[in-house]
Amino acid sequence: MRLVQSPRIRESCFYERSIAAGADSAGPYNGMILPYSYGDPVAEHQRLMHGVAMWDVAAERQVEVAGPDAAACVQYLTARDLSTMKDGQGKYVAVCNHAGELLNDPVLLKLNDEQFWFSIADSDYLMFAQAIAGERGFDVVVSEPDVSPLAVQGPMAEDVVASMFGDEVRALKYFWFLEMEFEDIPVVVCRSGWSKQGGFELFLRDGSRGADLWDAVAEAGAPYDIGPGAPNGIERIESGLLSYGGDTTDGSNPFECGMERYVQVDIEPDFVGKAALQRIKAEGPARLFVGLVLAEEAIDWPMGHREEVLLDGRVVGTMSGVANSTRVGAVIGVAQIETPVVEAGPTVEVCTPAGLMSAEIRRLPFC
Amino acid sequence: MRLVQSPRIRESCFYERSIAAGADSAGPYNGMILPYSYGDPVAEHQRLMHGVAMWDVAAERQVEVAGPDAAACVQYLTARDLSTMKDGQGKYVAVCNHAGELLNDPVLLKLNDEQFWFSIADSDYLMFAQAIAGERGFDVVVSEPDVSPLAVQGPMAEDVVASMFGDEVRALKYFWFLEMEFEDIPVVVCRSGWSKQGGFELFLRDGSRGADLWDAVAEAGAPYDIGPGAPNGIERIESGLLSYGGDTTDGSNPFECGMERYVQVDIEPDFVGKAALQRIKAEGPARLFVGLVLAEEAIDWPMGHREEVLLDGRVVGTMSGVANSTRVGAVIGVAQIETPVVEAGPTVEVCTPAGLMSAEIRRLPFC
Repeated sequence: MRLVQSPRIRESCFYERSIAAGADSAGPYNGMILPYSYGDPVAEHQRLMHGVAMWDVAAERQVEVAGPDAAACVQYLTARDLSTMKDGQGKYVAVCNHAGELLNDPVLLKLNDEQFWFSIADSDYLMFAQAIAGERGFDVVVSEPDVSPLAVQGPMAEDVVASMFGDEVRALKYFWFLEMEFEDIPVVVCRSGWSKQGGFELFLRDGSRGADLWDAVAEAGAPYDIGPGAPNGIERIESGLLSYGGDTTDGSNPFECGMERYVQVDIEPDFVGKAALQRIKAEGPARLFVGLVLAEEAIDWPMGHREEVLLDGRVVGTMSGVANSTRVGAVIGVAQIETPVVEAGPTVEVCTPAGLMSAEIRRLPFC
Repeated sequence: MRLVQSPRIRESCFYERSIAAGADSAGPYNGMILPYSYGDPVAEHQRLMHGVAMWDVAAERQVEVAGPDAAACVQYLTARDLSTMKDGQGKYVAVCNHAGELLNDPVLLKLNDEQFWFSIADSDYLMFAQAIAGERGFDVVVSEPDVSPLAVQGPMAEDVVASMFGDEVRALKYFWFLEMEFEDIPVVVCRSGWSKQGGFELFLRDGSRGADLWDAVAEAGAPYDIGPGAPNGIERIESGLLSYGGDTTDGSNPFECGMERYVQVDIEPDFVGKAALQRIKAEGPARLFVGLVLAEEAIDWPMGHREEVLLDGRVVGTMSGVANSTRVGAVIGVAQIETPVVEAGPTVEVCTPAGLMSAEIRRLPFC
């Protein structure tokens, strides 16, 4: 299917460079075009696993909460204790509605007491945050700033980023960041990214400099054979990373999404969904986010939509990602499956385009 | 660019039929795949103008507000007087944030005092409505029901729909609807649709019956030579219909979008954005949604993104749609342009892929 471009779906500030680098397929993400591949998935996976890749992930937008009440507003929006959070620190957080349903799984960046960014997955969380701030009278402005992440991922990413920004980036802990400049390009340099192969996200703070930053990274990365890439569907399944809106379904809560260690329901401050999440935690989640091992023979059908997971002919969950994993040596997937089925385990069936396949439930991550 | 399908972008319940009918391009809309064309734009336009077309517009989702406080909640969300609204009536409404910025331009359908649907354009308004309902303690459930519109548009649409549902649909006024069944398929039949050529939207209330409803409409429409189509980029510009998220930009308010006659800032009940909209109305909108006549020679560049509108070299607005209109006999567009420039008028320039073009400002609609 051909993607029609229109003013309703925005191009990123790296878009022209992505196209020039060979981007040939894409999907929508936060109302933008997110490049998915550059025509050579094997090379893209190899770069991520063994070298360094650069990804146009500007579609990962920021919801900025800024103003005197920013810290209070952000805590009220977040199901995690933020009381010890420092300037320059990021945290992976669950943001929920009043029913405890997950609305997004952002990384929250604290620039200072009066300025935070929710670096969001694919949903208009901006609107929810504006509604809460408006109704509760927090003295904040909730907006989308001109900030566009360019990810540098893979085991050689640190060398590339250090060659641009200096060795102090090597000391950054996971999700911590520095406000820096490369020449005169303003960038937040954060140790983060949607892979477990190590790397950074360069949050460009001036969309007019997209091509300049892209070119600078490409030049700094040339000695390391850097090349283009995109959030990688194989690696993320091996690593058990959640794809919000893909792995989640209507009504998914954070306990069903493998986020239990990031959710603190008994903190003193009130937050949206607190009572509901306390109840869900006490009762236990109805579903769990798990891995599946499907077969040893590689498959050749793409993951166009969710596939039903069955037990004794009854639908007990949905599989939302599948990959031929050489690291695991099998076809693996991720799924949301009813808790009692997971606990009884380990065998279920998946209704795939290639027919009914037997699958074994595994804990995430695979690697 | 190839559109990658994934669990993060849903197929509609009419999707298989749309593909079988030849859908060859699409765009994202409310997290779904919205078919854009079927390979023959001239035939699709002719059907809409002179015959009857059927459109898979299931991506027009419903935000249902249901419960004892539904009427109060919906009024609080809406910048329009709903006090006289009757069961079975729809109204085109502006829904805004506390700053008076437009978040969506839905048609609101009142099924009864305790059940309303916002039939939304392309934004996750569900989240905003959930936040408001949760914070204000309205006794409602805000959710997305299993409701998928199939549009039947064009001058012969009424005959087709009457042949399926009976002559009582002929008496429906614009935006009014009936809760009906076709055979055993539950449908809300509403006189509405994103064109000014007349027609209906059939709000299918059971997604498992998508193919059945599609086939029934195709069969009923066969004597009228019905064929597939999609929201039409030429007709909507001629008719001056707003494309939310395309024509609007960050911070657009309803007075800047040609919605002034649907916004009532002095009604007694409070609503989100009331104070801000009162101020904006008093001061006058900074920008206006207008038409442009660009040239008499047909153009051949697609409208991939917004184009800058210039006056004396200064950016004074953005053009967000352009079409070769045989009805107007010219290349026409829609744009958001600074109010003083519109008032001084009529000539501006547009920075197009074919170079700088002179354009004349016109009031909407063209036809």
